[in-house]
Amino acid sequence: MLVRAKDTVWPVNVAELTTPALLVDEAALADNISAMSAVLPGERLRPHVKAFKSTALAARLVDAGHQLFCCATILEMEGMAAAGLGHDLLLANEVLDARRLGALSDQAQITVAVDSDATLRAAIDGGVKKVLIDVNVGLPRCGCDVRYAGRLADAARAAGLEVRGVMGYEGHLMDLVDRDKQRAEVAKSMAVLAQAHEMVGGDIVSAGGTGTFDINEVATEIQAGSYMLMDTHYAKVGLPFRRALSVLTRVISVNAAGNFLVVDGGLKALGMDHGNPTVDGATVFFCSDEHTTLIPDEGTTWEVGDLVRLWPAHVDPTVAKHRSMHVVKGDTVIDEYAIDLRHW
Amino acid sequence: MLVRAKDTVWPVNVAELTTPALLVDEAALADNISAMSAVLPGERLRPHVKAFKSTALAARLVDAGHQLFCCATILEMEGMAAAGLGHDLLLANEVLDARRLGALSDQAQITVAVDSDATLRAAIDGGVKKVLIDVNVGLPRCGCDVRYAGRLADAARAAGLEVRGVMGYEGHLMDLVDRDKQRAEVAKSMAVLAQAHEMVGGDIVSAGGTGTFDINEVATEIQAGSYMLMDTHYAKVGLPFRRALSVLTRVISVNAAGNFLVVDGGLKALGMDHGNPTVDGATVFFCSDEHTTLIPDEGTTWEVGDLVRLWPAHVDPTVAKHRSMHVVKGDTVIDEYAIDLRHW
Repeated sequence: MLVRAKDTVWPVNVAELTTPALLVDEAALADNISAMSAVLPGERLRPHVKAFKSTALAARLVDAGHQLFCCATILEMEGMAAAGLGHDLLLANEVLDARRLGALSDQAQITVAVDSDATLRAAIDGGVKKVLIDVNVGLPRCGCDVRYAGRLADAARAAGLEVRGVMGYEGHLMDLVDRDKQRAEVAKSMAVLAQAHEMVGGDIVSAGGTGTFDINEVATEIQAGSYMLMDTHYAKVGLPFRRALSVLTRVISVNAAGNFLVVDGGLKALGMDHGNPTVDGATVFFCSDEHTTLIPDEGTTWEVGDLVRLWPAHVDPTVAKHRSMHVVKGDTVIDEYAIDLRHW
Repeated sequence: MLVRAKDTVWPVNVAELTTPALLVDEAALADNISAMSAVLPGERLRPHVKAFKSTALAARLVDAGHQLFCCATILEMEGMAAAGLGHDLLLANEVLDARRLGALSDQAQITVAVDSDATLRAAIDGGVKKVLIDVNVGLPRCGCDVRYAGRLADAARAAGLEVRGVMGYEGHLMDLVDRDKQRAEVAKSMAVLAQAHEMVGGDIVSAGGTGTFDINEVATEIQAGSYMLMDTHYAKVGLPFRRALSVLTRVISVNAAGNFLVVDGGLKALGMDHGNPTVDGATVFFCSDEHTTLIPDEGTTWEVGDLVRLWPAHVDPTVAKHRSMHVVKGDTVIDEYAIDLRHW
C-alpha cells in the first residue's frame, strides 16, 4: 500500500525533499487518532476517507480499531476495496452510475446513500444490495425531505434491497464556535434524523463530522475525517486535535528591502476555499499558482534556501492536490504514504 | 503524447463520461489560439505552460507556429523536453536545485530565471548554461531590484553563463478593467524592465500575460497562457478570448421544493482561489468537496441526471486537479488530452 520514491531510502532529512512537499507530523497524527478513538472507539466511528484519500492512512485507523469507513466518491470505494479495507464501506453520497459499486460486491460490503427514486433506481440497476436513506437535516445539499424517507425505504425493500438505516449530515453546524449553541442546533437537526429513522428502521443512524463528533447524541456512528490531519479552519473551533498536515516550501527570493519574501509553493499545492494558509513567523500576503509571498514578522531573518511550512486552511482539498504525503518526526522523513484515492 | 482512456473509442457523447470531467470546447480553443497568434505570431509569444500543463495542448501551439515556451516548475520543463518540445524552454521562476534542469541540456535549450546570488549559484552548480535576469517590476514576488540587475548579469557572465536578457512580470496589472489606465501603468512598469535591459544586455525582454498581451510595448515576447482555455475571471476584463474550459457534472439531487439542486462536482474539481464557478441557468450557492449546490433561475426545470457545466473562475489551478481534459465539439467528445505536467 505504501509507495516510496525511486532511489529514496528513508529516513532522510526534510531538506532532501523536492518542494513543495506534503508533510504529516507523525506525533500529531498519532495523538489525533488516539484522541478520537478514546471518545468514539471501534464502530462508533465511521472515518471519512474523503479527508485523506490514502489507503495507508485508512490502514492506520484499522490498527486503531476502526473497521467501518465512508467515502465521497466511487473511486474511493474502489480503492478501499482493492486494498482489502472493504469490511463495511458506505458511499455517503448520491450516485447515478452505480455499476462500478455493484461490481465491488464480491470483495467488499457495499452500502450507498439514496435520496430519490432516481438514485434508488440507480442502486438497483447497478447491482448494489444495501442502502441508507439520506435525509436532509438542514444543510442545503443532498438528502430527501424527512416526509419521503419512509416511502423511499419501502420502495427499496420492495425491490429486494436491505435498508440499513438513515444518514443525515449536519454540515451547516460544523463551524459554530459557541459550543452550547452548537449542541442545541445539532439536537434540533438530529431530531429530524431520528424522526426519519423511526419511519425507515434499520440499525444505522450515520451522521456527524469532526466539528460535532462529541456532541451528536443521536448518531450510532460519526462520519469524521478531517480530525486526523486537522486544518487551521477547524482548529479555530477549539477541538482536541492538533494540526498535522503542512506543505513544505523553500524561500526562493527575498526582497532587497527585506519587507517580503517568496516561497516555492502556492495555490496549486494548497486548498484555497477556506482562505490563505498560515505560517509561523510570518504573515501570508498572497498566494499565486506556484508562489506564496510572505511578510516576515518583525525581528525575524530569512534567507534564500530556508525551509518554510505552510499550514493549510482546509486539509481535504490540499491532500487531493498531491501524489503522496511524507510522514515526519521533527525534520526526519520516516515514510511516504501514497494519496491513492484521488480523482473520480 | 495523447492518452486515451482504456476501452474508450472516440467519439462518444459527453453523457458517457464519468463526472466530474474536464471539457475543452474545440471551437473556442481553436479561436483563442488563432486570435492570439494573429496579434503575437511565432516568437512574439512565449506561451506559459503552467496554464494548461499538457504537452498535447503545447503541441497545438507548435502547430500554430509557436516554438518558445515558458514554464513555472521543473517538472513542466522535464515533460516538455521529454515530449520533444524543447526548442527553447524558459523556467520563468527561481529554483535552488537546478540539477534536474542541467540534466535536460542534451535534449533541450534550457534557460532559467535568476534574481539573486543564491539562485545564480544554483544555476551554475546545476549545469544550466543560460539565464535571464528576473527583475521586480512592481508585483511583490520574485525579481531583483533593478539596481542589482547589471551586477547579477556581470556575475553570470564571469561564471561563463550566457545572459539572454531580462524578464519581469507585471502580474499586479493583469486585472485592471480600465484599459487606458492599464496601458499607462504597464508602460511605467516596463520602463523599469527597459532600464534593466539597458544594463544587462541580451536579445530577450520577456514579460506580459493574457491580461496585457496587446498593450505591453516593451517585451520582445509575451508570456501568456490562460488565454487558451480562459476563465470567468479574465473574461470580466473584456479580452478577445472565449471561455473554453468547463467541468462537466450531473445533477444528483433536487430539493423537494425545487429551490435548490446539487451536482456531483465541487471544490476538489475546481480552482477556488478566484471564487465560485459560474453556471448557465442557475446561481452557485456554495461548493463543497464533491458537490456544488445551485439555485435555479426562475422558469428553469431540473431533474436528477441532467448534465451541468461549471465554468471555473480560474483555469490554471482547475486544470491541475484533473488527470485529463476531454476535447468536445458540442456534446461530442473527439479526443482526450493528458494533463501530464502536474505536480513538481
